[in-house]
Amino acid sequence: MDYVNGPGRNHLFVPGPVNIPDQVIRAMSRNNEDYRSPAVPALTKTLLEDVKQIFKTTSGTPFLIPTTGTGAWESALTNTLSPGDRIVSFLIGQFSLLWIDQQQRLNFNVDVVESDWGQGANLDVLASKLAEDQAHTIKAICIVHNETATGVTNNLSTVRKILDHYQHPALFLVDGVSSICALDFRMDEWGIDVALTGSQKALSLPTGIGIVCASPKALEASKTAKSVRVFFDWKDYLKFYKMGTYWPYTPSIQLLYGLRAALDLLFEEGLDNVIKRHTRLGTATRLAVEAWGLKNCTQKEEWFSDTVTAVVVPSYIDSSEIVRRAWKRYNLSLGLGLNKVAGKVFRIGHLGNLNELQLLGCLAGVEMVLKDVGYPVKLGSGVAAASTYLQNTTPLIPSRI
Amino acid sequence: MDYVNGPGRNHLFVPGPVNIPDQVIRAMSRNNEDYRSPAVPALTKTLLEDVKQIFKTTSGTPFLIPTTGTGAWESALTNTLSPGDRIVSFLIGQFSLLWIDQQQRLNFNVDVVESDWGQGANLDVLASKLAEDQAHTIKAICIVHNETATGVTNNLSTVRKILDHYQHPALFLVDGVSSICALDFRMDEWGIDVALTGSQKALSLPTGIGIVCASPKALEASKTAKSVRVFFDWKDYLKFYKMGTYWPYTPSIQLLYGLRAALDLLFEEGLDNVIKRHTRLGTATRLAVEAWGLKNCTQKEEWFSDTVTAVVVPSYIDSSEIVRRAWKRYNLSLGLGLNKVAGKVFRIGHLGNLNELQLLGCLAGVEMVLKDVGYPVKLGSGVAAASTYLQNTTPLIPSRI
Amino acid sequence: MDYVNGPGRNHLFVPGPVNIPDQVIRAMSRNNEDYRSPAVPALTKTLLEDVKQIFKTTSGTPFLIPTTGTGAWESALTNTLSPGDRIVSFLIGQFSLLWIDQQQRLNFNVDVVESDWGQGANLDVLASKLAEDQAHTIKAICIVHNETATGVTNNLSTVRKILDHYQHPALFLVDGVSSICALDFRMDEWGIDVALTGSQKALSLPTGIGIVCASPKALEASKTAKSVRVFFDWKDYLKFYKMGTYWPYTPSIQLLYGLRAALDLLFEEGLDNVIKRHTRLGTATRLAVEAWGLKNCTQKEEWFSDTVTAVVVPSYIDSSEIVRRAWKRYNLSLGLGLNKVAGKVFRIGHLGNLNELQLLGCLAGVEMVLKDVGYPVKLGSGVAAASTYLQNTTPLIPSRI
Amino acid sequence: MDYVNGPGRNHLFVPGPVNIPDQVIRAMSRNNEDYRSPAVPALTKTLLEDVKQIFKTTSGTPFLIPTTGTGAWESALTNTLSPGDRIVSFLIGQFSLLWIDQQQRLNFNVDVVESDWGQGANLDVLASKLAEDQAHTIKAICIVHNETATGVTNNLSTVRKILDHYQHPALFLVDGVSSICALDFRMDEWGIDVALTGSQKALSLPTGIGIVCASPKALEASKTAKSVRVFFDWKDYLKFYKMGTYWPYTPSIQLLYGLRAALDLLFEEGLDNVIKRHTRLGTATRLAVEAWGLKNCTQKEEWFSDTVTAVVVPSYIDSSEIVRRAWKRYNLSLGLGLNKVAGKVFRIGHLGNLNELQLLGCLAGVEMVLKDVGYPVKLGSGVAAASTYLQNTTPLIPSRI
Repeated sequence: MDYVNGPGRNHLFVPGPVNIPDQVIRAMSRNNEDYRSPAVPALTKTLLEDVKQIFKTTSGTPFLIPTTGTGAWESALTNTLSPGDRIVSFLIGQFSLLWIDQQQRLNFNVDVVESDWGQGANLDVLASKLAEDQAHTIKAICIVHNETATGVTNNLSTVRKILDHYQHPALFLVDGVSSICALDFRMDEWGIDVALTGSQKALSLPTGIGIVCASPKALEASKTAKSVRVFFDWKDYLKFYKMGTYWPYTPSIQLLYGLRAALDLLFEEGLDNVIKRHTRLGTATRLAVEAWGLKNCTQKEEWFSDTVTAVVVPSYIDSSEIVRRAWKRYNLSLGLGLNKVAGKVFRIGHLGNLNELQLLGCLAGVEMVLKDVGYPVKLGSGVAAASTYLQNTTPLIPSRI
Repeated sequence: MDYVNGPGRNHLFVPGPVNIPDQVIRAMSRNNEDYRSPAVPALTKTLLEDVKQIFKTTSGTPFLIPTTGTGAWESALTNTLSPGDRIVSFLIGQFSLLWIDQQQRLNFNVDVVESDWGQGANLDVLASKLAEDQAHTIKAICIVHNETATGVTNNLSTVRKILDHYQHPALFLVDGVSSICALDFRMDEWGIDVALTGSQKALSLPTGIGIVCASPKALEASKTAKSVRVFFDWKDYLKFYKMGTYWPYTPSIQLLYGLRAALDLLFEEGLDNVIKRHTRLGTATRLAVEAWGLKNCTQKEEWFSDTVTAVVVPSYIDSSEIVRRAWKRYNLSLGLGLNKVAGKVFRIGHLGNLNELQLLGCLAGVEMVLKDVGYPVKLGSGVAAASTYLQNTTPLIPSRI
Repeated sequence: MDYVNGPGRNHLFVPGPVNIPDQVIRAMSRNNEDYRSPAVPALTKTLLEDVKQIFKTTSGTPFLIPTTGTGAWESALTNTLSPGDRIVSFLIGQFSLLWIDQQQRLNFNVDVVESDWGQGANLDVLASKLAEDQAHTIKAICIVHNETATGVTNNLSTVRKILDHYQHPALFLVDGVSSICALDFRMDEWGIDVALTGSQKALSLPTGIGIVCASPKALEASKTAKSVRVFFDWKDYLKFYKMGTYWPYTPSIQLLYGLRAALDLLFEEGLDNVIKRHTRLGTATRLAVEAWGLKNCTQKEEWFSDTVTAVVVPSYIDSSEIVRRAWKRYNLSLGLGLNKVAGKVFRIGHLGNLNELQLLGCLAGVEMVLKDVGYPVKLGSGVAAASTYLQNTTPLIPSRI
Repeated sequence: MDYVNGPGRNHLFVPGPVNIPDQVIRAMSRNNEDYRSPAVPALTKTLLEDVKQIFKTTSGTPFLIPTTGTGAWESALTNTLSPGDRIVSFLIGQFSLLWIDQQQRLNFNVDVVESDWGQGANLDVLASKLAEDQAHTIKAICIVHNETATGVTNNLSTVRKILDHYQHPALFLVDGVSSICALDFRMDEWGIDVALTGSQKALSLPTGIGIVCASPKALEASKTAKSVRVFFDWKDYLKFYKMGTYWPYTPSIQLLYGLRAALDLLFEEGLDNVIKRHTRLGTATRLAVEAWGLKNCTQKEEWFSDTVTAVVVPSYIDSSEIVRRAWKRYNLSLGLGLNKVAGKVFRIGHLGNLNELQLLGCLAGVEMVLKDVGYPVKLGSGVAAASTYLQNTTPLIPSRI
């Protein structure tokens, strides 16, 4: 427990869980309540309505499941698919890998399309697979919008275009865990059938709600999907939605009030402004990486992620040492390299409730750590590059104009 | 949202979620943290060790799953059983009903032993089933320790005796959701293979952790159990336990610190004192019900529950009106009657972080509501009966002696 | 520190500091802010405007001084009076005694009008003093609206009538510490010149703001008052009010947000409803005392206080033992008897953010303690008397109708 | 109220009120308590004992007064001096000016020794005054340890040497508001008679406790000091100290628990380490100012303050515009220039619960604001200078070694 204390604030720059706004911490600091009183359904109703905005959907049906992103994945898959169903899934990093592992363990027939870690999903392969699949044996396309391990953002609108081009009826399932509320995301426009995120990511809440949103087509599929499910079954939710009591089992009262506060803050800033802020922070981070003379793990600009940057370190440095040292000396929490890129990259998460000076403090810290571990960085160089950009682009805070 | 405010405090007497101690609310009022830093595993290690005490086990392996009681049920079943497995399950009220529904939807072959709502599990039937089952086709016995809908506590030590008597190897799976931390519970002594509870019950936390504890025999069974599972799979946890990082996916940092605080408070009071306090509050409640001239839904004293009392109302009264009115007029939250006993009973939860005067305030409120809805109660009668008992039995607060 | 923990909630029934609503605790759970930014003045402006409502004044000027009630007293006196000034002051209990002590130490010429503890201010003496004072040597009348030590409420409108009858220009200074926001209080209508309260009383905040409200006449007097003062000087506040920055020195940011939340809650309930609630709780308490066969320290009904009841115990009981035992055994905090009534009375505070069932829990606790210390109370009798009244009079919670 | 929200965290760099550690915010997030129960005196006792450490005194007597720094000043003066007493007081900036204003309004005969704003106290003048004062007409020396308006730290040990040199018995009264807990401070060694600070400064609490510590000589003086005082009178405290109940009037329960948590954190870090951290942050800030090509308001290195830096801007820039813009665009709170230096300096507070990366974020922000307002700063230059120093000097966080 002693580990926690240090002078000053922890600088939390892992790509999730992210910083919670004080307003949200306050909203959640409360006793339990009877979730069968009239108050909790009234609150829930506003949440289910308003949460659609973060998916940019009007036709979708959201589920606020007391689980994590992993559970949200399972909910998306088991409600729409049956064992043995063929799905096309893209492996581009640790989180897509884990989702694919889940897909396989849930007994789907997974057609894995692999890319180098640092590249985006190979959509050419998708096109050729769809082209060949006249029989429509492919039941779903599973894709991670933003691969948190490598900082790669896939182009979802292209996926939709390919599906449309081949008039393929496969379901379009998207992991938006490290994208929704931070990157441009358009569930209805892009014809996404199931989109999901976790509360501890760009929504800036504690872990504990897996937010899954289902299109009408996905809801229809859930009626016949044969995957065994109970806890994750949408049917139970829909039954309680109809009754107006909303909850098949006990929700976290605290997270509901927290979600209300989080949405209020996002709407006050404006979702489009939130996305622009992430673009700004992502760009600034990449400018700093470049100024340090380091490589971005993401191999092409089209895949650059505005929520997380994986920085490749020289081969003579162990990136884990950077993470360890940042925490021990500067109270800075960075993301480790995972699996194939363990030791090779460290990650800067720049999503959620964050502003320019927080990021610049982090970048200044990264510079010092780089020097600590023997990389000949010019101190201040990254901050200079980032702040030159930010000084030109940061708008006034809307509530203070 | 306006619903929430009323002058003074909400009197929360539903049988879960229950009142959270202020110390725990404080402990949870915090920002997120990197769960891969050295701090969170260090904390987790103490939790996994200490949580065993609430199960009274030294050989069990606990799992702190980011889910609810319903998820904990699913985890218990899918990790130890295979589709088609025969299980004996006792239906005595709404929560055992829901668990049985889950068991059936998970494709087990459920041998349902039903009792009237208000009675305990029919263990004679268990005995005869085991006697007949020379072939050991029965793979598990599933029983709810305390049926929250009717206020019935089953005798688990008798279940164990029957199993031992027939030397039957069936797994012994127990829902301890509304019993663990409140009623006498002895996992090791009673040879329970999987016991489970939810954080929002007698542990007095928010909803969000399904706590499942597995005996060595259950762990062994999990190696061959064929039920499909990923999110709820113990295997992933065990892998991370071995690595010392503990978490296969993101836990709620807040709930971990909350659990630490909750355990500290329980240990400070003494688990045995906690159980005695529940006995005291349960007895006091039943004395009040008797004084009011009302019937306990629980049909025999041997099944009386010290965590929840279901009170039967006269047929000319709708018990839901009692619950509604209690909330609207007195800021008192009582439990509804569910399913078969809807409209016929209301429930007083008396579990978790609660003391004598809180209960007496509740009982005084119930009396007023009873009068409000036309039941000719003598105001003060229940409080008098309860306080006469409590004045004789309440010990000094240990920390203030 | 260990003293604090006990199972369940502390039942706080001292007549201040009182229970803080959870909404207010949440509002105050925050970091510091720059009080010279545009945000804090904007907030302060709303507070200064809205706080007038609790005094029922439109012409008064409020000061939110970072101090306690004792400091607020000093502010009221030193800003309006000069050393040697003659003032008439009523001694009816410990708190009026302390104020008089302060008046004397501040070098005023105090004309003390003493009553038995348990009686109200002797206003006949006031009348005769004013009648005699043709020369207007009396510069101020100082009176405690509600004497917290004995549970005596003085009639302020009568004071005003007497002053008007004699057309006496004396300033009318009122300690409303345990009355404002709980009892009927009308600064403008009653021609009060300085009224004051403390944040930890019926406003239900932590200690830390002494709220003083000055009439135009009092402000005028402050221009010539020669008492030495700096910290408590209204002049500095007025200067900063004019500049629109409001604070001559650093306020507690937390208490400002807390005050905002407290006012919002009071306005939501409706100030008149708040006062009615106090009447209800005060009446219920007195009915319980009567049912126990005990005497109210307050000697006549006209002085009964709806915020605190001082209960006289039989001579063979030490009332301090009741307070000690209540805390040690039932986690119930009662008020001690002070000074002349030490050992002879204990006090039940029933002010601030409190509802019916909280009070009934307290009364049930008092009954048990009375029995513990050897008083032959019939358990349940007080609760019965109180709840019979409350069941007839408690309205629905406005926000839940 | 809307003003408050902005994406991300407020960067609070005014020289008070300062950032509160989360642990302290948590400790204060609580209901009121009866301050006459055994719990609060037990807590208070530890506070009075432990708070002496921040003054480095064993012989001093501390008072935790519910007031601000202005009230603490008044308490120091009125308890030790009588009207008409001659005191020597140093005017070097806005806060010493305000204290002198108070001294004059309290009717002391103040011998003001003025320096240019940006210079320290002129101790040569002190020496000559003492030399002349054979009759010991000077009753006290009043000095601000750290002038918050100009970032000037006076040398207290020299003051003591001068007093000793002339064997002068004058009381030595020190405003340590922006120094204690941050700068080297030795009450006993330097023979300070009254030292004082406010909770919202380096202790990192909310405003609300004026902490005053009196030497035995000061206590002795208080027995004969004739200044009128009640609220601030030490006598009342001493009376309650003797009784073991500690409080002459109601303290803020929340601030007491907060102070406990704040002291625990300071002791865990180590007071010497805390001071070293402030030296480090102060040095880093000055290096940045130099790199920007700007002047420190403090005219000589011997007076450099490690808690606040006042930065002089070129004459063509209005420093208030810097503060406004920092807040509106970057959520950065800087200190305004006050009085004589209004518009000419802005201030960076670097005291309290703060670490290296927080400061670097602030410095990066200042650079951008400087550019915004037309100063041709090289972005990154200040951060580079500061981080070059910090990378060499920052130790590992003690709890994480």
